[in-house]
Amino acid sequence: MSNPSEERWFYEVFPQAGTSFGLEVTSKLHSEKSSFQTIDIYQTTTFGKLMVLDGCIMVSERDHFIYHEMITHPGLFTHPNPRRVAIIGGGDCGTLKEVLKHDNVEAVTQIEIDERVTRMSEQYFPELCELNHDKRATFRFEDGIKWIKAQPAGTWDVIIIDSTDPVGPAKDLFSDQFLSACFKALGEHGILVQQSESPILHTHSIIRDLQRDLNSVGFNHVHTLPFPLPVYPSGWWSATMASKSVKPEHFRNQDAQNKSFDTHYYNHSIHQAALAQPEFMKLTLA
Amino acid sequence: MSNPSEERWFYEVFPQAGTSFGLEVTSKLHSEKSSFQTIDIYQTTTFGKLMVLDGCIMVSERDHFIYHEMITHPGLFTHPNPRRVAIIGGGDCGTLKEVLKHDNVEAVTQIEIDERVTRMSEQYFPELCELNHDKRATFRFEDGIKWIKAQPAGTWDVIIIDSTDPVGPAKDLFSDQFLSACFKALGEHGILVQQSESPILHTHSIIRDLQRDLNSVGFNHVHTLPFPLPVYPSGWWSATMASKSVKPEHFRNQDAQNKSFDTHYYNHSIHQAALAQPEFMKLTLA
Repeated sequence: MSNPSEERWFYEVFPQAGTSFGLEVTSKLHSEKSSFQTIDIYQTTTFGKLMVLDGCIMVSERDHFIYHEMITHPGLFTHPNPRRVAIIGGGDCGTLKEVLKHDNVEAVTQIEIDERVTRMSEQYFPELCELNHDKRATFRFEDGIKWIKAQPAGTWDVIIIDSTDPVGPAKDLFSDQFLSACFKALGEHGILVQQSESPILHTHSIIRDLQRDLNSVGFNHVHTLPFPLPVYPSGWWSATMASKSVKPEHFRNQDAQNKSFDTHYYNHSIHQAALAQPEFMKLTLA
Repeated sequence: MSNPSEERWFYEVFPQAGTSFGLEVTSKLHSEKSSFQTIDIYQTTTFGKLMVLDGCIMVSERDHFIYHEMITHPGLFTHPNPRRVAIIGGGDCGTLKEVLKHDNVEAVTQIEIDERVTRMSEQYFPELCELNHDKRATFRFEDGIKWIKAQPAGTWDVIIIDSTDPVGPAKDLFSDQFLSACFKALGEHGILVQQSESPILHTHSIIRDLQRDLNSVGFNHVHTLPFPLPVYPSGWWSATMASKSVKPEHFRNQDAQNKSFDTHYYNHSIHQAALAQPEFMKLTLA
């Protein structure tokens, strides 16, 4: 039952899940209260630097690649030609970097409500911000919900919702009004990708509700792709993809196989694999 | 940095990984020192009952199904006709239960060094022990290494090594002498499956070494299958399969699709998916 000194550890407790995850830290590098949340940066002993928002782990240097690759590449390799991509949230810029690896992409707009998250990422996670100066990238620091509602119909190919948990400020990013506005802003082959929490903790709640809402606002195909994520609750996470026309299983497999860029988790076999549904998910989401 | 009262939580700290995992508990149901280890049983608030050996989480009621299904069904659906199966370790009997679901199986022997683990599982995890009275099952409580060395050559179809971490008593279950003895005890289409720790923590160490050793003792095909496991370090775990003849990708897909029994994680698509290697594993294990 003993636990090491709290001086040397950061703990995130998930009361609803009845679990706690801790990382050994050597120092707290930064702490501030922005207009939206408390931002803490730690140096850990084994997971590199760690960004924490309101006590919830957002990103670690060691395992962020799995999340950023899986919230980006399956969606972009499903759309037939993703030229215009919007990222709602995503302030650490890791998703932006993955999107910009695609040669088809002509324009990416990142709409993050809290500019301080991006400034902290530039300072402490420069690897995630390597492509921030790409001329295809636009940064807007404002409310993503208002922004998406103001977009002309059919103007985006892919919208990625790279948000925090559906409580507090991010709650409305899971509402059907917001998802409906995304649907309208997407073109005829439009793809939406939403981070969708843990398969083992949330299949019966957030994932099922999100799939239902995505179907109800008009998407023809909705599919949840699980992936591992050691620093998030349960170590198992997911992205839910909604598509207007292309079935998720008909993604551009050959293009993924011949991709011109490096990845650390994603490849065309992993993409195919992430479409497989564990038996309990199949039954619950049927 | 605050952490709830240690009275109400069980914590497992992984010093080498620099991580800690905690589960909220309502009570400690049992604690004993067997001849081999300390066995603790807790009632958790959200993961059901929990068995802990020498401070390391072994099994929880909520997520054990992923481990037990993934250490069993891929191997048994790869062997062309698995009639005789040996389980080294596996004292909680969850793997035995999954093996006995296969109609081909005529005999299963479980060789667990610590009889107390099995007795505790019978008492606190009756669901795992539901098939212990199947007449095809034999229980031996002795050293699995000595046992396997005494087996006549070619007498087993599948050997599953369902052990604790490769430190202390289980260390020799990762040695090439032991793996070589397993190879000899296996028939011409023999399959060995070994629990092989965390892809993100151990691909460069335990998994790479195990693959090398399995190849060096004579197996023609070696493949590591990752799967999620929330209560184990990093929430991501693996089973490594070694085969004398059948390539892992040539498993009995149709039989898996038409399986006569229920599962909660495994199905033929998940089996196929688990054969996909994340990019960093492909590079490290090439």
